[in-house]
Amino acid sequence: MTGYRPTAITERLTLLVLTSEREPALLVPTLERPDAEAAEGTSGLDILDWPDGADPYRVAGTLLPSEGEFGVSDSAWALHLLGLQDHLPKSRYRALTRSLPMLRAVKDANELGRLAAAGAAADRTYTEVIRLRFAGRRETEVAADLAALLRESGHEQVDFTVVGSGPNGANPHHEAGERVIQPGDAVVLDFGGLMYGYGSDTTRTVCVGAPAPEVRRVHDIVRGAQQAAFEAVRPGVTCQEIDRVARAFITEAGYGERFIHRTGHGIGVTTHEPPYMVEGEEQPLVPGMCFSIEPGVYLTGRFGVRIEDIVTVTDEGGRRFNNTDHALQIVE
Amino acid sequence: MTGYRPTAITERLTLLVLTSEREPALLVPTLERPDAEAAEGTSGLDILDWPDGADPYRVAGTLLPSEGEFGVSDSAWALHLLGLQDHLPKSRYRALTRSLPMLRAVKDANELGRLAAAGAAADRTYTEVIRLRFAGRRETEVAADLAALLRESGHEQVDFTVVGSGPNGANPHHEAGERVIQPGDAVVLDFGGLMYGYGSDTTRTVCVGAPAPEVRRVHDIVRGAQQAAFEAVRPGVTCQEIDRVARAFITEAGYGERFIHRTGHGIGVTTHEPPYMVEGEEQPLVPGMCFSIEPGVYLTGRFGVRIEDIVTVTDEGGRRFNNTDHALQIVE
Repeated sequence: MTGYRPTAITERLTLLVLTSEREPALLVPTLERPDAEAAEGTSGLDILDWPDGADPYRVAGTLLPSEGEFGVSDSAWALHLLGLQDHLPKSRYRALTRSLPMLRAVKDANELGRLAAAGAAADRTYTEVIRLRFAGRRETEVAADLAALLRESGHEQVDFTVVGSGPNGANPHHEAGERVIQPGDAVVLDFGGLMYGYGSDTTRTVCVGAPAPEVRRVHDIVRGAQQAAFEAVRPGVTCQEIDRVARAFITEAGYGERFIHRTGHGIGVTTHEPPYMVEGEEQPLVPGMCFSIEPGVYLTGRFGVRIEDIVTVTDEGGRRFNNTDHALQIVE
Repeated sequence: MTGYRPTAITERLTLLVLTSEREPALLVPTLERPDAEAAEGTSGLDILDWPDGADPYRVAGTLLPSEGEFGVSDSAWALHLLGLQDHLPKSRYRALTRSLPMLRAVKDANELGRLAAAGAAADRTYTEVIRLRFAGRRETEVAADLAALLRESGHEQVDFTVVGSGPNGANPHHEAGERVIQPGDAVVLDFGGLMYGYGSDTTRTVCVGAPAPEVRRVHDIVRGAQQAAFEAVRPGVTCQEIDRVARAFITEAGYGERFIHRTGHGIGVTTHEPPYMVEGEEQPLVPGMCFSIEPGVYLTGRFGVRIEDIVTVTDEGGRRFNNTDHALQIVE
């Protein structure tokens, strides 16, 4: 909200105070003051600092009404929330969960341009990586290639480079390990980072040489589910409906039990943000919202398949920011 | 405590439950279950999982006594603490701040070996980086060299590579920017990461060509303060005493107002952890504790100087894990 990004969120309290009672204030550790002052959007703020050894919650208490009800960022440290609760025992707190991120859920043209650029750069990364050798190399080596290609493609930050080969692909959050990739392996590639401050996040599942029949069958099912969910995107449809469409497709094909996560997440200046494409999320889609559609099937001990694109909502329906082929790509 | 490190701490609740009432339990998102099960220290745990769309706090509520008093990790998300508070309104919570980290503040021989190895690797990095050219290159280029050298030296993870040249050095948490380093600049180099799972963190301030008289004078003062604080290290001395010794030295030399942070922090599996060398910390030093001693002087708009070593407490006094020369190094 201020353009100020602390070098690290730490045990030292940094607090942006927005109340109806007073002008916005930013409380920072003394040693962070120069960075805070230099940020683009802090010139209109009352910047206060607290030195090491002082009690920052006492200072915070002077900025806040003693019986207020406050929203707190989801990822704020519990340490800091407990410090505020101790100093303002009559105050109440709620997680901002949806309220703050939903203010930025609908992206404007500039933001859509950045997300499109990030998606196109991730696509170039995929196009390059499938030309490389997979068989006989460790997952970590292919992950390093993905990171280098993301940077070459223009990403200023690489956040994740998942390479899940064979049985490792059946673990949706496996990153990359020392396993040597084998001929016949299905390999889940899920990678992304930041470009112009906005996130990319795409997944393709490739096969090293000829796929086993079940790899091909499961890949076809996941591909169908991804396409069906994409085609369901239009203004007014609820987020949970997107999840239901993908899940129904996979369930009908007999793999519903093995689709063990939600269908997608919002994306913007953070990689995971509301709205989530998940059962129970009744938020209707609005033009300009951007999120992942990433159904997957995970067969424990054997292999996994996931296909993921970032999609935005337009008046006419969904538009993909990832546009590489969904067909099962054979790599060497 | 379990050897399980989630790929990411996110909006999805991961909760290790340790109570006197029941066997230890680990609650994880369903899609993280394979990773949790594979971790070294989780075999004795009751592992439960919750799928996307379910309410994890309801599940957590069944694992916890309804009127308990619980310690919560400092860096746990406020979202999760508020979720627990909502579901168990009669329970109370305290930040673990010192209680949990202090259990691991005293390092055993194996841990000391890892910290010593991390320190020696950081020293090799410094020895190499000062051979490189500084003048005419951007801070970010030198930072990239530092990162590559840390990895070559055996670090599995690079956490920070501060290159603060000229006026940027006066901002203690400046990272590295697009500024082109100039002849005559003082340059603060503060870098570290993880090796064998334990942290390194060292700072030296170098000068590009001949130093201005005040750069040399301030450097001498900071060097003296670092040495004085180091010599004060022995079992039984309080943490705040280490801060006082460094601060008194700099204050007597006339720069006390410009030493704008605490003198040090504990280090181990995390880079910043209790005990902190700060006014008000009355914890006595115990053999096996490891922490930074890093006084600094920051002259806004001009330059900064910081010198930092990781130190451990022995029966005989302090022992440094960083042993590169403290003399003002001239670089090209």
